[in-house]
Amino acid sequence: MNQFLDGVHNNDDMSLFTDFYELTMCASYFDNKNFRSATFDLFIRRLPENRSYILFTGLEQVLLYLQTVKFTEQHLEYLKQQGFKLQFLEYLRNFKFTGDVWAVPEGTVAFPNEPLIRVTAPIIEAQIVETFILNTINLQTTMSTKASRVVHAARGKSVIEFGLRREHGVDAGMKVARSSYIAGCRGTSNVLAGMVYGIPVFGTMAHSFIMSYPRELDAFRAFVRSFPDRSTLLIDTYEEFAGLEKAVIVAKELEAEGLRLGGVRLDSGDLVESSKRVREILDDNGLGYMKIFASGDLDEYRIDELLSKGAKIDSFGAGTKMGTSSDRPYIDVIYKLCETMTESNVYSPIMKLSVDKLTLPGRKQVYRYKDVKGKYVRDVIALDSEKLSDAEPLLVKVMSEGKMTYVLPSLSQIRDFASENLSMLPEKYKAFMDAAVYPVELSQKLQELVKSLHKKLLETS
Amino acid sequence: MNQFLDGVHNNDDMSLFTDFYELTMCASYFDNKNFRSATFDLFIRRLPENRSYILFTGLEQVLLYLQTVKFTEQHLEYLKQQGFKLQFLEYLRNFKFTGDVWAVPEGTVAFPNEPLIRVTAPIIEAQIVETFILNTINLQTTMSTKASRVVHAARGKSVIEFGLRREHGVDAGMKVARSSYIAGCRGTSNVLAGMVYGIPVFGTMAHSFIMSYPRELDAFRAFVRSFPDRSTLLIDTYEEFAGLEKAVIVAKELEAEGLRLGGVRLDSGDLVESSKRVREILDDNGLGYMKIFASGDLDEYRIDELLSKGAKIDSFGAGTKMGTSSDRPYIDVIYKLCETMTESNVYSPIMKLSVDKLTLPGRKQVYRYKDVKGKYVRDVIALDSEKLSDAEPLLVKVMSEGKMTYVLPSLSQIRDFASENLSMLPEKYKAFMDAAVYPVELSQKLQELVKSLHKKLLETS
Repeated sequence: MNQFLDGVHNNDDMSLFTDFYELTMCASYFDNKNFRSATFDLFIRRLPENRSYILFTGLEQVLLYLQTVKFTEQHLEYLKQQGFKLQFLEYLRNFKFTGDVWAVPEGTVAFPNEPLIRVTAPIIEAQIVETFILNTINLQTTMSTKASRVVHAARGKSVIEFGLRREHGVDAGMKVARSSYIAGCRGTSNVLAGMVYGIPVFGTMAHSFIMSYPRELDAFRAFVRSFPDRSTLLIDTYEEFAGLEKAVIVAKELEAEGLRLGGVRLDSGDLVESSKRVREILDDNGLGYMKIFASGDLDEYRIDELLSKGAKIDSFGAGTKMGTSSDRPYIDVIYKLCETMTESNVYSPIMKLSVDKLTLPGRKQVYRYKDVKGKYVRDVIALDSEKLSDAEPLLVKVMSEGKMTYVLPSLSQIRDFASENLSMLPEKYKAFMDAAVYPVELSQKLQELVKSLHKKLLETS
Repeated sequence: MNQFLDGVHNNDDMSLFTDFYELTMCASYFDNKNFRSATFDLFIRRLPENRSYILFTGLEQVLLYLQTVKFTEQHLEYLKQQGFKLQFLEYLRNFKFTGDVWAVPEGTVAFPNEPLIRVTAPIIEAQIVETFILNTINLQTTMSTKASRVVHAARGKSVIEFGLRREHGVDAGMKVARSSYIAGCRGTSNVLAGMVYGIPVFGTMAHSFIMSYPRELDAFRAFVRSFPDRSTLLIDTYEEFAGLEKAVIVAKELEAEGLRLGGVRLDSGDLVESSKRVREILDDNGLGYMKIFASGDLDEYRIDELLSKGAKIDSFGAGTKMGTSSDRPYIDVIYKLCETMTESNVYSPIMKLSVDKLTLPGRKQVYRYKDVKGKYVRDVIALDSEKLSDAEPLLVKVMSEGKMTYVLPSLSQIRDFASENLSMLPEKYKAFMDAAVYPVELSQKLQELVKSLHKKLLETS
């Protein structure tokens, strides 16, 4: 056991990365010999405050997990100590996921109540995988949704994700880089994400680098000596503009050698006024090619404000607030039973009635209606048995009897698909606050099923 | 490369789990032959809104990381593609951390500007490790601080951490369980955290379990058949109290066999009124031993409100809001240079001046003054060379020349230490909003050093 990574050093342990109640419920299904099939929907119950859509990501990790999840002897020993019976442990020893899975592709723009992943499997299998699926979809979809807003606020200027130091641990650091890149960020500061995912990596310099030299000018000269063709100098270590003069000196020294300084970074103070003044001074010195990179508590609200006030910023470094989705660090993603197989082997739709927690019964599909330009008009949630014309079904089959039947798209394909999705969502649905509500309707047949089940449940429960 | 865990399958990769600029700065130090020592402080700049202290956790993972961090051939190949020079890559091939580290123990209650970890090492080493250290301390300390508030709000009733499905990925799921347990939670729903850390695991049942049976009563009977001695039945699936009558029936059936039903769980509706009514009905049926477990959007504010209104709840399940620290999902933890060795091999204190981002110079120690009962009175940040009497120094040496010189306490020892720390912090500093500000002062000598450096910096920068 590798202590440091807390058992997270290989896939195997992911079977125990689950809520205890998943296992007790499954033990009960086992004791009661319930190996019948069931269908669960993953969806969001409602949109978080200020959000008007979600950008779905995380499917790749779900599929890789479903393909490999298993229990090791160490797990079984631990579960034995927790009081699970030997017969159930024997069942777990041979456990593998054998279900069918439908899902919307990563990069899909989606809305509340729309099934995003649909799992049909023997109920024990479908139940055991719940926690991991929710965990990874919640993380990635929360982050890609947030990042898509930040990218939108930047109005075509670059956004670099560099929140690694405040993201929630190792897995979050990796997945935030991935989902932010899908959402349109130009790159990340996370070097490991660069290596593992092939995402472009970016960086500037820290105040400590400047402070480790007796004089700011010495620090700048030392840095550009190592990276003459791509240095961005941090100019606010001592006073707001003291560093700028020195950056200009260094830029001129580089020009004498036929080289060009990349730009300067502003990390504090009034970014509107300082960026305007920095741009002016750079331009006055014939340094129009130098870029201004800004950072410091940036998110969609702040970037929108900066650009609205005329800030002269070419590139934004978005850190903590984007990387933790700080105004809303989660989405209400849930995984709910919508269908069980009865003892007579017939699928029967299921619905939950408890206060404010209604669910939609039966196996479903989502249809998206578009206008002639491809812009999204409205979605309809329908029963899977229906076929709606003039609309595109969003859910595709990704796994059959536990085998992946889906060619995983590359990260850049997912990024392109997300970009197309976001561009087809009309502007009024992309406001940062109080956006219009995108219409999601239920098909006539689904409405009828809801009505009849509601009546039946109140009579018999 | 294990795709699924994104390179996080062993410690080795943690060297690249860093911001790109750490590596470019280090390459520049290398090119400029700066192998001199420097000291960095990890501390929080200010308290997050509503927080009045932090509960420090995460040191164990920092030390395990520092002991093992290294670069593999795969990393060097990737860095070569990123344009790093061969000589620097050769240096990285032999990289290991050789510094001295001082830190406050995990479970320490601490305040802004107090050094929590102090790293003295050749500047390249001290710089490369920055991002990982910040990442893991931010995650764990954010979460233990949040959880300590939730536990305090519960006034001695149990709190179980069960936010796994909304915590930010695998590492967060593990570390939230760990840091919440340190903060006083009674256990976790995360089975892997149970196995890896030895934390007690708990669970009840989900609505889907009830819904998978034609009748609620059948579901209850099936569940208690598997876990007759420790079942908690979820009673709000169909209507607010419909499930309770059936739970009473099942409890009576168990009593006939000499067994006792554990309790019931409420997950929706008005928890104050429903818990009172449930308690009454249970007591009226001679089921005074059955516990009431409550869940649903619980955090310190809500639990405090529930108990103030007389809710009859024995145990709280705290999920998403605690496990993401949703009202403030990060702390302003930073890692700043405070001392460098000059070219003439003399340590020289360093300070940063930029707007709102002052740092404290020199190698420092924190002293805590206590009253006769051991209650905390005030802290003083002093220079390490000072010795303050009648006060306890908080920082202890944990690593010497890259070797751990500290016996890692067990998780239960850390939990006890945290409990003692929290109990010694006077109540007025523990209010959930607008708490009193705990006094943290600078020693006379440190104040003088700040003043003289400030003057010098303005003259020479």
